[in-house]
Order: sequence, then structure tokens, then C-alpha cells
Amino acid sequence: MVRIAVLQARAGLNDPDANLALLRRFAAQAAAGGAELIVTPELFATGYAPAKVRNSDGASIRAELARIAVEEGIGVVGSTVEDDGGTGYISASLFDESGRELLRYRKAHLFGAEERGSYAPGTGVPVVAEFRGLQIALGICYDIEFPEYSRSAARAGADLLCIPTAVPATGDVGGSEPLLTYNSERISTLLVPARALENGVYIAYANHMAPDFTGTSVIASPYGTLLAEAGAGEELLFAGIEPDEVLRARGINTYADDARPDLYR
Amino acid sequence: MVRIAVLQARAGLNDPDANLALLRRFAAQAAAGGAELIVTPELFATGYAPAKVRNSDGASIRAELARIAVEEGIGVVGSTVEDDGGTGYISASLFDESGRELLRYRKAHLFGAEERGSYAPGTGVPVVAEFRGLQIALGICYDIEFPEYSRSAARAGADLLCIPTAVPATGDVGGSEPLLTYNSERISTLLVPARALENGVYIAYANHMAPDFTGTSVIASPYGTLLAEAGAGEELLFAGIEPDEVLRARGINTYADDARPDLYR
Repeated sequence: MVRIAVLQARAGLNDPDANLALLRRFAAQAAAGGAELIVTPELFATGYAPAKVRNSDGASIRAELARIAVEEGIGVVGSTVEDDGGTGYISASLFDESGRELLRYRKAHLFGAEERGSYAPGTGVPVVAEFRGLQIALGICYDIEFPEYSRSAARAGADLLCIPTAVPATGDVGGSEPLLTYNSERISTLLVPARALENGVYIAYANHMAPDFTGTSVIASPYGTLLAEAGAGEELLFAGIEPDEVLRARGINTYADDARPDLYR
Repeated sequence: MVRIAVLQARAGLNDPDANLALLRRFAAQAAAGGAELIVTPELFATGYAPAKVRNSDGASIRAELARIAVEEGIGVVGSTVEDDGGTGYISASLFDESGRELLRYRKAHLFGAEERGSYAPGTGVPVVAEFRGLQIALGICYDIEFPEYSRSAARAGADLLCIPTAVPATGDVGGSEPLLTYNSERISTLLVPARALENGVYIAYANHMAPDFTGTSVIASPYGTLLAEAGAGEELLFAGIEPDEVLRARGINTYADDARPDLYR
């Protein structure tokens, strides 16, 4: 069993020092609580505001996330910006407790005009890395709302999807009307557990807190139940991830065996 | 707005006369309640017991479903067995109120050893037919648990998926252990509304009643909310289907536009 933690908190815009200090404090608290991995929200170190984030901060932030992993003795999933020859990506990385970056993933589904105006979408499918006997894949926010993403991650062998996210509370993503129906907790309580059930995977979904974001971070089991669910405010969630439970869930809900990819190409 | 009804009731095994009389009574009740379409459970006319159902009954049952549609003045979605040159399929048909069979669909995802031992899986993707200005696609039971099925139906233009289903209460589908986690209402309250939200479609999901089946038939909106939800017993659900609401939902949740089919072939 691998105990994990999910951070839900507030990040200041373009204030990496303060945000990383806060992240470090929660990493220490997670480790003290027995967690071997902490999953943090999308662009937590810079704050989430795609058009305003400095891409150049990415490399130094990743270096600090690696230091936090080493110094607090815990794996860290953190989301940063990447500047690849002038092209920016929203990324997530998995660092083990030795500070090694086991995975880096670029968000494939950009959300809304602000993200699309500021970043390029990732062009890769999720891959997995082993961490304490778990096969982990990364995804970011809007990715998890698309069943194709999580199906692809499960087919790559994932036991656990770690999903930094930023779901704004207003829903005002540039449209002419308030998007009241988008910004419900239905992403956390409907789509995320559905993805977990239909693929037989655990999902750790780490959101920013209210009032600017919706909170409701969750950890879902491979049966589609919620092992932990945050409220609106600052919170650190914990759950135990059991690789054997993934196998058991897939033996009961045999979706992987029964799917018909031949039909739906 | 097209008002629809979903039937949840009990069907006797290989007793088409009694089952069709019951279906006719509910079709009349649905029409009297203003419904223009009634969706009925999987293999309702024969009773659901794949290894025991007489395939030869299919054609005569479809003829009677057409008569019910005409005589009660309501569209009917009914599920029957098909014998196609010695090969059996679990099918569903949509009849309009003139008795015309607008759609016939063969279940693509067979569930469990009993179904697989008795029937062949459908080899086609869902297609749509227009009924009162609505684009309707059919699916059957286990199909809806696979996101690929409903994505395909939505891409074909569906506004409404009509899903006859039979979710057994015991979960004992031939395995060696009781499948306690399979037979939750999570299909009705998690997977079905997730499919509705992620594709911006209405879904009418018609199940058999307790104690042999789980009940919990539902009608889901394109926002992933439940417009109607049955308990365990005999029940006729009603809801209004608004084609404009499908367009509005897809304007808010722009999954169709934002998907990356290029990545996940």
C-alpha cells in the first residue's frame, strides 16, 4: 500500500517563493502523515492565470520541486510551465524522493481562450513510470474530462492517475454568458469517479481552493467511489493506494477485456 | 420539446403475451401523460435470461411492438432477440407511431458468460434516426458503460440515446465470487450521467425492477444531471427533451470541439 496526499490550497500569482514555501510546508505535513507522494494543483508554484504566468520560471521551479522532494523525503507531483524553444506548454512532473524527475507530461487538452492563446497543446499520449511499485501516469485538468485520455493512460498500464487541476469558480472563461453549468463540482464527483471506474484506476485530482476556484479535490478508487473529498478551503487529503485493488477491480469490472476498440477507430 | 417516458417494470420469462400486454398498458399510460416516446428495458417482452430466451420470438414481438406504437399512438423503443441465419443478436428497435421501424441496433458489448454463450456481438456503430425533430440513437445495457460507444453515437449526431438495460441485482453473472461492486447503482448515477455530460446528449436508461434487477432507471440531461430517477419498483418516468438544450450544453461544455481524436487512435 502506498499512502498518498492531495493538496488543495491557494497560490499567489507569480509569487513562486511564497507558493513553493507553502507547498514545502504541506509536503512536510504529508510526509509526517505517512504519505509517500503529494499531488499538487495545476501551476501551483506560479499561480494559475495562463496569460500572466512567466514561462521562464519553469526550470527553476522544477529544480525547487526536486529539492522539496529530497529534503522532505516525499515524491512530488507538481505542475509548471515549460518554454521549449519559444513554445510554451502547461506541464506536470513527477519527482521521486531522490529528486529524480520520473515523468514530465504536457497538457493535451487546453481549456478556454486564455490557455489556447498562451500555450501550445501537448502532442503526446500519457506514459507511465513506476513509483513504489505503482504505475503512475500524469494528466492535467481538462484532460481528465475526456475519456480518451484516461483510456489511453490505462492502456499504457497506469494504476494511478495524478491530475493537477485548476477549475475556476466563476466559469467565466471568456464567453458572453456565465457558464454556470460548467463549474459545478460535477467534474470532481461525476467525471473523475467515472474515469476511475471505467478504467479501473485510482485518480488523485488536486484543485485550487475557493473562492477563486471550486475546491472539491478528490481521490477516487478503481470502483468509482471517492476515498477522500475536500470541501472548498485549504485541505490535505490522504488515501491508501493498493495495486492489488486495481487488479481486483479490473477482474470485477472487465471493461479492458470487453472493450471493442475495433469498432470505434 | 419532446416528452418521453421510461418504463421500469417486471417481465416474466418467455411470456411475451403477458409482457407485451403490460408494455401496452404502460405505453397507453405514457401517451396519456403526454409522452411521444416510451423506452422499455432490455429483452422486456421475453424476459431477460439470455440462455433461456427463444430467439424465434423476435419477429413476432417486433410486429406487436409496432402495433402497440400505432394503436396507442406513441413511439416505442423495445428490445428483442434477432435470429439472423442461425446467429442470434440482442437488439433494440425504435418504432414511430405509424409502426415504422426507424432503427434497429445490435448490442455491441455482450455482458458475461451467459450472453456471450448465447449471442453474437453487434458489429456496427450506432446510427441515428430523426423522430419528432430529435436525432435518436439506440444502445443496449453494457454498451453505455463504454465511453467509446456514446462518443460514437454523439459523433453520429445523436441528441438522445435510448438504452434498454438489464442490470441484475445479485451481480452473479457466472463468476466464482459475488460481484458486489459491479451491481451498484453507480451505472445509473455515475456512468450514465457522465456519458450524458461528456457528450452533451440526453440519455434514457430503462432497467428492469427489483428484486431480480437493480431498478434505478434514469433520464439524464446533456449537463449530466438526472431529470428523473426511479426507485427499485415499478415506475414510469417522464422528462422533456429539448433539442435546443443539447446545442446550449455543447456550447458550454465544448468537448466535441476540444477533443483530440488525432492523439488517441
